[in-house]
Amino acid sequence: MAQRCMAAALTIESTRSGYVESLHRVSVAVTDGEGRLVASAGAPELITFWRSAAKPFQALPLVAEGAADRFGFGTRELALACASHSSEPVHRELAEAMLRACGCEERHLACGTHPPLSPQMAAQVARGEAVLTPKWSNCSGKHAGMLALARHHGWPTEGYERLGHPVQERLLEEVCRWAAVARGELWLGVDGCTAVCFGLPLSAMATAYARLGTSEEPAARRLREAMWAHPELVAGTGRLCTELMTACRGEVLAKVGAEGVYSAALPALGLGVTLKVESGDGRCSPPALLWVLRQVLARSGARTLPEEGLAHHAEPVLRNTRGEVTGALRATGELRFH
Amino acid sequence: MAQRCMAAALTIESTRSGYVESLHRVSVAVTDGEGRLVASAGAPELITFWRSAAKPFQALPLVAEGAADRFGFGTRELALACASHSSEPVHRELAEAMLRACGCEERHLACGTHPPLSPQMAAQVARGEAVLTPKWSNCSGKHAGMLALARHHGWPTEGYERLGHPVQERLLEEVCRWAAVARGELWLGVDGCTAVCFGLPLSAMATAYARLGTSEEPAARRLREAMWAHPELVAGTGRLCTELMTACRGEVLAKVGAEGVYSAALPALGLGVTLKVESGDGRCSPPALLWVLRQVLARSGARTLPEEGLAHHAEPVLRNTRGEVTGALRATGELRFH
Repeated sequence: MAQRCMAAALTIESTRSGYVESLHRVSVAVTDGEGRLVASAGAPELITFWRSAAKPFQALPLVAEGAADRFGFGTRELALACASHSSEPVHRELAEAMLRACGCEERHLACGTHPPLSPQMAAQVARGEAVLTPKWSNCSGKHAGMLALARHHGWPTEGYERLGHPVQERLLEEVCRWAAVARGELWLGVDGCTAVCFGLPLSAMATAYARLGTSEEPAARRLREAMWAHPELVAGTGRLCTELMTACRGEVLAKVGAEGVYSAALPALGLGVTLKVESGDGRCSPPALLWVLRQVLARSGARTLPEEGLAHHAEPVLRNTRGEVTGALRATGELRFH
Repeated sequence: MAQRCMAAALTIESTRSGYVESLHRVSVAVTDGEGRLVASAGAPELITFWRSAAKPFQALPLVAEGAADRFGFGTRELALACASHSSEPVHRELAEAMLRACGCEERHLACGTHPPLSPQMAAQVARGEAVLTPKWSNCSGKHAGMLALARHHGWPTEGYERLGHPVQERLLEEVCRWAAVARGELWLGVDGCTAVCFGLPLSAMATAYARLGTSEEPAARRLREAMWAHPELVAGTGRLCTELMTACRGEVLAKVGAEGVYSAALPALGLGVTLKVESGDGRCSPPALLWVLRQVLARSGARTLPEEGLAHHAEPVLRNTRGEVTGALRATGELRFH
């Protein structure tokens, strides 16, 4: 009965021995740069926290206001400022270099520590071969960027991550501009990394990405170029953002967020996409994103995504304690085109 | 629109800074021993894999056929045979003792290894202070019981965990009897621990528990008594099954299962409960169970569950990387009484 009542649905099914054991509903908004809804599933107006998928917008002021140039941030640093990185050596070293460049140190970082997103790095830490410090945080590039913005403007570094600090106010302003949402409409909260995070409708997030994908503003162009030049810095080895932007450089701009959020731009089509896995399960957002992108690209007649190289993200297998495959996470459903 | 169409709903909301960031829908069946639906939420006829919540039924033949007595399995061993234990020393040592008692060794266990359910044990292993072996598996008591049943009947130990082996056939027969489901209706699959697992409707699982709670069959009585005598063996330090059965010994029989399943019996009311968190998120089934039990007990006028001691299970807090509380998992909704 529930199925007949709902809008077009996208579901990620978790299977065991061929049966659907658990499932995750996904809401999707695909829009153009004017905010027009082009395709959807579930609740495209759903409001949720944008989390790390907002990072490119939080990095724009760094470029637009001259902080990036002042501190010599090139494409690598800009890519890390937009990153939810895997804490690999290259990520940690670059974060440290960004801090040094703007006269800061690791002790200035407000982000806490967490198990690295890279399984190899996490295992190293678990074995006691390395100790987690704030630069290991997947958000350390974003935070280094926030500190650089503070230094550039002569604002205090103390409390840079908190609501009310001029850095956060400036970033919120930028987010609102691109998403065409009024400051007063945003949900405001505290992120996993302790910085300000904000909530808005999926359709507004998608619209911001549609714009980011095609805008000729120099800062937008530089950030796009940076993410495409260094996809390995935006995430890390084996992760979807990295593999997708490596395979589709120039065609897809993608950024994952915690709690099942994923945003992307398809610049050639002038479209933006944002999806939210209802349960917040981050294992489900990669298959959901690939499914949505394939549907949209197929409909438009554009070149489709490659199959090999992305298959393990499109349908991640599930294993039991003896390593035997017992099932998979698979996307099923229907995107409604408007 | 979807809300108007659905049955009474139970939702576990995941909050951040006071907003609902993600959510998990829960289906619930509360039945009596005749299979009559007393209360429900979501889809009480939902079919899913019973997982570890089925363990008491898988342990019944051990008692009923004399294997437990033959090998000297007392209440401690029977509790472990029903357990998803935390791999604490007492659990591992008892599993080893059970194996020895029936002439088996750790090498006979088919269950693979996994990070212990106890955070302390998991940290020990991660630090390299202990090496995971099959007896560490949370299912090692169940598997030791399966091996004991094989030894008792003179069946081969090889492949005891696989579909078709007489041990698995015997256990499936027992499950079908209590749940009043035909063998041909069951979903059959491979569990995380590699043993056979089976799927059936939540309402059938609840009915089985309603019966288990009140049955005067000697095997059922002995298993109930064993679980209530040793709740610390059925799960482990700090876990809900343990804390609930310690606080409500004789009043609540509870057993968790993977992928968001939880079953319980309320013997004084002649009722059984089974719930399934749609997304499979195991953080959500404890708050869901406590919410359902409280609703049912309140409606019946029975003594309610204690508040203190269970609060951290009823509304688990969520923290960011600096350990600050950013939100919680909280149950909300309505149970429909029939």
